[in-house]
Amino acid sequence: MFSPVKPEERLLAYARLAVRVGANVAPGQVVQVLGLVEHAELVRAVVREAYAAGASLVEVIYGDMHNRRAAIELGPEEMLGHSPQWMLDRVAAWGEQGVAMISLTGDPEPELFADLDGALVAKALPREIQAAYLRLVTERKINWTIVAAPNEGWARQVFGEPDVERLWQAVATAVRLDEPDPVAAWQAHVDKLSARAEQLNERHFDAIRFRGPGTELTVGLLDTARWHCADSKTAWGARHMPNMPTEEIFTAPDFRRTEGTVRSTFPLSVGGAIVRDLELRFAGGRAVEVKASSGEDIIRRQLETDPQAAMLGEVAIVDGESAVRRSGLTFWNTLFDENAACHIAYGHGVAFAVPGADALSPEELLAKGINVSGIHTDFMIGGPEVDVDGLEPGGAAVSILRGDVWQLA
Amino acid sequence: MFSPVKPEERLLAYARLAVRVGANVAPGQVVQVLGLVEHAELVRAVVREAYAAGASLVEVIYGDMHNRRAAIELGPEEMLGHSPQWMLDRVAAWGEQGVAMISLTGDPEPELFADLDGALVAKALPREIQAAYLRLVTERKINWTIVAAPNEGWARQVFGEPDVERLWQAVATAVRLDEPDPVAAWQAHVDKLSARAEQLNERHFDAIRFRGPGTELTVGLLDTARWHCADSKTAWGARHMPNMPTEEIFTAPDFRRTEGTVRSTFPLSVGGAIVRDLELRFAGGRAVEVKASSGEDIIRRQLETDPQAAMLGEVAIVDGESAVRRSGLTFWNTLFDENAACHIAYGHGVAFAVPGADALSPEELLAKGINVSGIHTDFMIGGPEVDVDGLEPGGAAVSILRGDVWQLA
Repeated sequence: MFSPVKPEERLLAYARLAVRVGANVAPGQVVQVLGLVEHAELVRAVVREAYAAGASLVEVIYGDMHNRRAAIELGPEEMLGHSPQWMLDRVAAWGEQGVAMISLTGDPEPELFADLDGALVAKALPREIQAAYLRLVTERKINWTIVAAPNEGWARQVFGEPDVERLWQAVATAVRLDEPDPVAAWQAHVDKLSARAEQLNERHFDAIRFRGPGTELTVGLLDTARWHCADSKTAWGARHMPNMPTEEIFTAPDFRRTEGTVRSTFPLSVGGAIVRDLELRFAGGRAVEVKASSGEDIIRRQLETDPQAAMLGEVAIVDGESAVRRSGLTFWNTLFDENAACHIAYGHGVAFAVPGADALSPEELLAKGINVSGIHTDFMIGGPEVDVDGLEPGGAAVSILRGDVWQLA
Repeated sequence: MFSPVKPEERLLAYARLAVRVGANVAPGQVVQVLGLVEHAELVRAVVREAYAAGASLVEVIYGDMHNRRAAIELGPEEMLGHSPQWMLDRVAAWGEQGVAMISLTGDPEPELFADLDGALVAKALPREIQAAYLRLVTERKINWTIVAAPNEGWARQVFGEPDVERLWQAVATAVRLDEPDPVAAWQAHVDKLSARAEQLNERHFDAIRFRGPGTELTVGLLDTARWHCADSKTAWGARHMPNMPTEEIFTAPDFRRTEGTVRSTFPLSVGGAIVRDLELRFAGGRAVEVKASSGEDIIRRQLETDPQAAMLGEVAIVDGESAVRRSGLTFWNTLFDENAACHIAYGHGVAFAVPGADALSPEELLAKGINVSGIHTDFMIGGPEVDVDGLEPGGAAVSILRGDVWQLA
């Protein structure tokens, strides 16, 4: 886990990777940076790199989970999750301008909301803004990326002590900052993932089956959808890398055809609480039973966000070669943990996996089996004990992962 | 300077004072909190207090001077000071909704821009947003207050070392947090200031004259304007206290009738640079000569912001009893230093000193001698060596301050 990158260079190198490879900021472009106040150090580095890359304007939105907690705890319930008009207008403007978007993750206090009423916590999510933002992603109107900002609280969650340096080293390895040429290393990495996506595309599986302790799940696929890696393009053809790190090959499943039970293999940090031992049962595409040893409430409320929230929007395959997996760590952060193991997401579908989907209305997407929702929550279901098979239209099973090793040739 | 208030209570007490006395947040009101990322601790306390006072929604805007520095240093010049439409719409909505506004001051790096081109620094100020905001203040459409958030960088500027505890004690004393009942102490204090404002109002002076080392300045007054202390009311009658601390009695001068020279008696922290030994010469109301041993450039550029920027918008009297003055400190922060000494401000006029001015258009204000500009910069010109006189319409001089002691009976 030792990283040869010097700490002072690491911050700049990650900021540069986020700007040049992640969002791939174009000269003259407007850039939006989203982070928490605790992320200020990396935010500042990203802003400088964005201007250095030729951004015309870089706007920063600093969030603060403590202020959301105050609203949940002390504010009037009817205002929770309120989306002010100026913010909706702002999100609309992002789409019209075709902005670059760099979001920072890394929760300084993952259990800040753990003692609050889960129903209120779920209510406090800005649903309209989220839905408008997901729509921009679906329509490929922004070149976006999510990167991580190591901080004391997050390090404490991972290591039991606020060892930010150790967390930085883990992050640097996961995002290939310790390679001699990180940009070239990313290119090679993405080429490998793309090749694997092509292997899956050639098979035209009808469904993916996960089998392991507590899991017997079939996820129906769309014959119109393709497998992708994170290597993405905007509607105008600008390449970007939505997640850094990324190790997944994913597609939009047919939201109507998920069946069976699934047990999560990692804890999940979501909405200011930790969800442990999550188990779901799906019938006719819908999650109809929910169980968890902690955070069950927040999942239940998320699934009730809108009529499509309890249907799948994504299925993704990650093997044991993942740089995140090899760290052996639980990062308690979806950007990392979803890249350590196969995962599924309930809520909004990754519609760009379906060619032409960016021109479809929400109603047309739904009619084609592509999910539309105001939320999108990934959770991890893979691991060495979970077999992953592709099911052919005739019903025959083809091994994809055994013991987390890629099986297709 | 010892403050008996416990540190953990001090933060909450100041937040409570800002919410209950400063902005005087009404139940159901929307509240805006403006601060820097370095102010997060006090921001969070203010947000909680605002919800506790019945706010329906508290929105926080965190700024970051480092990101503005990046724009000045690396961004395209033509975008400096750009005011995005969504932000202008947002400011307009503040006026329509009649929000409460709590702004935090306390610069963590007062010389962050000192090595940058002053012309670019001045250009980077969001002029349109500032002008729209000043218009809300003029029209009394928001109940607003400015309070201070002690932080390491500011403490280093004041004491030469990052002694935040000592700065907190100085702030606590200046804002009367160390009184047994701070709210009652504020009432008594404001009553005293109001009585002095009335003394000045009864005299109907035609001008104020400042005489001291390097200063021989006459500021013509408007016969329509009244002297006020910070005790203010919105257009709908909500009381609020725009500055905490406040020790001044002020009015809107006739911007056409300032004559003579003036030497500042305190350094001035403005726009990311320190201005030292500022000297101005006024003729026909306009600052026509500018000299300073540092920061001259930023003042020159401010005075060129718009055609009215170089004319006065405020004249204020502060005597030696001021709690800020008695600290003996230079705070390097206008909220405090302007309350340690008599001061004047170039730029936007404190129009609410003229009854009925909130209903006037900018053109009507100017026709009446009340200044209208996109900036408002106070600087300190008083002190024990500066005599302050009121000049009667006939030309006779009446002592107001001698050796910083109030002379009117």
